[in-house]
Amino acid sequence: MEQVINYINSHKDSYIEELKNFLRIPSISTLAEHRKDMFTAAEFVLEKLRSAGMENVRIIETKGHPLVYGDWLNAPGKPTVLVYGHYDVQPVDPINLWDSAPFEPTIRDGKIYARGATDDKGQMYMHIKSVEAFMKTKGTLPLNVKFLIEGEEEIGSGNLEVFVNTNRDMLKCDAVLISDTSLYGPGIPTLTYGLRGMCYMEVEVTGPNRDLHSGTFGGGVDNPINVLAEMISKLKDSSGKIKIPGFYNDVIKLTKKERDNFKRLPFSEKQYAKALGLKELKGEKGYTTLERVWARPTLDCNGIFGGFTGEGAKTVLPSKATAKISMRLVPNQDPKKISKIFKSYISKIAPNTVKLNKTDLHGAYPIATSLDDKATVSASKALSKVFGKKTVFMREGGSIPIVVVFAKKLKAAPVLMGMGLNTENLHSPNEHFNLNHFHLGIQSSAYFLEEYSL
Amino acid sequence: MEQVINYINSHKDSYIEELKNFLRIPSISTLAEHRKDMFTAAEFVLEKLRSAGMENVRIIETKGHPLVYGDWLNAPGKPTVLVYGHYDVQPVDPINLWDSAPFEPTIRDGKIYARGATDDKGQMYMHIKSVEAFMKTKGTLPLNVKFLIEGEEEIGSGNLEVFVNTNRDMLKCDAVLISDTSLYGPGIPTLTYGLRGMCYMEVEVTGPNRDLHSGTFGGGVDNPINVLAEMISKLKDSSGKIKIPGFYNDVIKLTKKERDNFKRLPFSEKQYAKALGLKELKGEKGYTTLERVWARPTLDCNGIFGGFTGEGAKTVLPSKATAKISMRLVPNQDPKKISKIFKSYISKIAPNTVKLNKTDLHGAYPIATSLDDKATVSASKALSKVFGKKTVFMREGGSIPIVVVFAKKLKAAPVLMGMGLNTENLHSPNEHFNLNHFHLGIQSSAYFLEEYSL
Repeated sequence: MEQVINYINSHKDSYIEELKNFLRIPSISTLAEHRKDMFTAAEFVLEKLRSAGMENVRIIETKGHPLVYGDWLNAPGKPTVLVYGHYDVQPVDPINLWDSAPFEPTIRDGKIYARGATDDKGQMYMHIKSVEAFMKTKGTLPLNVKFLIEGEEEIGSGNLEVFVNTNRDMLKCDAVLISDTSLYGPGIPTLTYGLRGMCYMEVEVTGPNRDLHSGTFGGGVDNPINVLAEMISKLKDSSGKIKIPGFYNDVIKLTKKERDNFKRLPFSEKQYAKALGLKELKGEKGYTTLERVWARPTLDCNGIFGGFTGEGAKTVLPSKATAKISMRLVPNQDPKKISKIFKSYISKIAPNTVKLNKTDLHGAYPIATSLDDKATVSASKALSKVFGKKTVFMREGGSIPIVVVFAKKLKAAPVLMGMGLNTENLHSPNEHFNLNHFHLGIQSSAYFLEEYSL
Repeated sequence: MEQVINYINSHKDSYIEELKNFLRIPSISTLAEHRKDMFTAAEFVLEKLRSAGMENVRIIETKGHPLVYGDWLNAPGKPTVLVYGHYDVQPVDPINLWDSAPFEPTIRDGKIYARGATDDKGQMYMHIKSVEAFMKTKGTLPLNVKFLIEGEEEIGSGNLEVFVNTNRDMLKCDAVLISDTSLYGPGIPTLTYGLRGMCYMEVEVTGPNRDLHSGTFGGGVDNPINVLAEMISKLKDSSGKIKIPGFYNDVIKLTKKERDNFKRLPFSEKQYAKALGLKELKGEKGYTTLERVWARPTLDCNGIFGGFTGEGAKTVLPSKATAKISMRLVPNQDPKKISKIFKSYISKIAPNTVKLNKTDLHGAYPIATSLDDKATVSASKALSKVFGKKTVFMREGGSIPIVVVFAKKLKAAPVLMGMGLNTENLHSPNEHFNLNHFHLGIQSSAYFLEEYSL
């Protein structure tokens, strides 16, 4: 490994120059006028995979932007790692808020500023450089590697999902290595090992068949807004527990080890509340804030509307009221099952004075890898070695659907070895990536491949 | 009285021709291009008052459309009746839904079709004709009469309210006679003796200082929509009683006589529910539907909004949620006092996790005349005589602010002797007025003046 790491260290500057070239390509997936740039970016990735020593490199056309594939499968008996990442980026508006042009990479204070720097060009590129370092120094890799890089992550990964579903043999692997998340903090080696899922519903309550005058009819009929509010109030109890029968049945409880891990993380509830302008935090009783946002299911109204919503007063007794209600799910909850029991409970608590319309708007499966999983353990060791600190284990409160697709369809362990920071303005003006983390990321990737091959 | 009634009967046709001329004037108060028509209509009223034998007739300019005044005060020792009505009308859109032109009065099936026919030109005109009948036959009235006819009822009566406040001596009277409401049903002599008041509030709940991602923050902070729903659910109990402490303190209970009166009215809860498309009605326990909508206070959400209200799913944990909440009040509730206890209760039930913003949007006093009031008794007798049936006593669930202004500022009993019907399309295309009710209204007005003078 010394050879490999020395090679990486001695190429630090040229890696940055290469990354700059990558970042100059305005590969904005959502804008039709950048269609050509998408191919340019895919070709760039292809060339870099080829020069890194990957085999079978090719562009795979889809209905949308192309995938890039390459592999090296000459380590029989050794595990196979699929590296996933994306070469597409978010739009740059509002352009006037950028301190330097989004596609003219600029280094300030050890950070490289450009659209896509941290999300995900910079992070994805680390893995190409780590395999290259092996191939250039040893002519071989310690295990089998497949690269699958897409150009539609920022627009939902729809075509990649189809491709994974129909090419499971081609993509067969033991672990999926992804760097598209964040470190817990600067210089803190981090593995994200769990993501929440989601069940997003819309509930429409209809009372009278038309809007009524609240003078003429007020008091005579049930009011759909009041009814909906009453129903929402029955979804959780005063301790923050969700009252839908069976809601927690499939929840895998946090282990003592996980809870201890979270407790050791630097976190101030006071600062967290202050940053949000809150006098007081509130959530499910018996859990810390980190546990609540990472590893406990939730129920939140994301929207509500009904009746008169303009300025001033209108004396309407409305016909309808609607709420958007989503539940974040944790392993092993099933969004389809949750949708079913949600609908059944909501019907049960609705009075006879209204009609209900319940719509499924979105579902996503939760996921969490065991801390004892071999890929996870290897990644943890690799990170600790490179950063010189104990790796921390965190979860994410949100969902990353494609991770679940990989895990479920390929039955592979996801390794979320993110090197970004939440403060690096992903999706905003002045996106940047800490070059020290870029460098540590290349080393961590190399150590992981070595460690996981043992 | 025989002479007077004979006169009225023999002029039936000419009254209709006169009314047609009145209805031809497009006196739409809300549209600037009809400014001239407002004066034409005011002049029309002035001329008719003059030819009816009224004295001191004059146009009173205001900041808006003019008032018309006239009086006959030659019955010393007798009561004084102020007749109020309005010559302005609603706009006519959508014009293509009218079966005949809105300002070309047309008679079909004993009904006169035109904008303003029932609201309020036709109803107001009845009283001019009744005093005329007295003057033409007897040269005198049985009591003192003042007419005050405005041109801004459909736009809020703002200038009239100012005028009443500053001209109390000029308008001094014992009763205010108004025909701008409805009969309980065709051919049913009706007095409306109570109107509900109102206290209309807006409550804004603010949680975090910005919209948050429900994945990243969901579970960690209180959600303003859920909080607002919970608060709304605490405003009423399961029996429909409003839980604001002191809310019912000033409520004057319905008397047995009033409740018996309501019970005798033809009313089918089943048909009422069916017409609204409802399986079941619901309201405050212990009261009938008519009692609930006419004579019990209410609390209704008139609007609610917060978070994402577009189509589909957005995973936002919103910063704010807002509800418009109005309470219909009954005698002797005070909107200012209710606003105060509402705000205090809402602050009490709000958790520490949110900030509140409470805004008064509108207040109106309730009113109800005693059934034993002399003017009410006289009106009841007059109606029974003319219609040949017992007069029914109803209330209105809505508010008519100007009635309260008259009652409070002039300390006069309002006599709401409406001859319209709820089905006569007021404010809609094909507004009309039943000519039989028009005729009976003129007679009822004459009998009332006679009866009240005794």
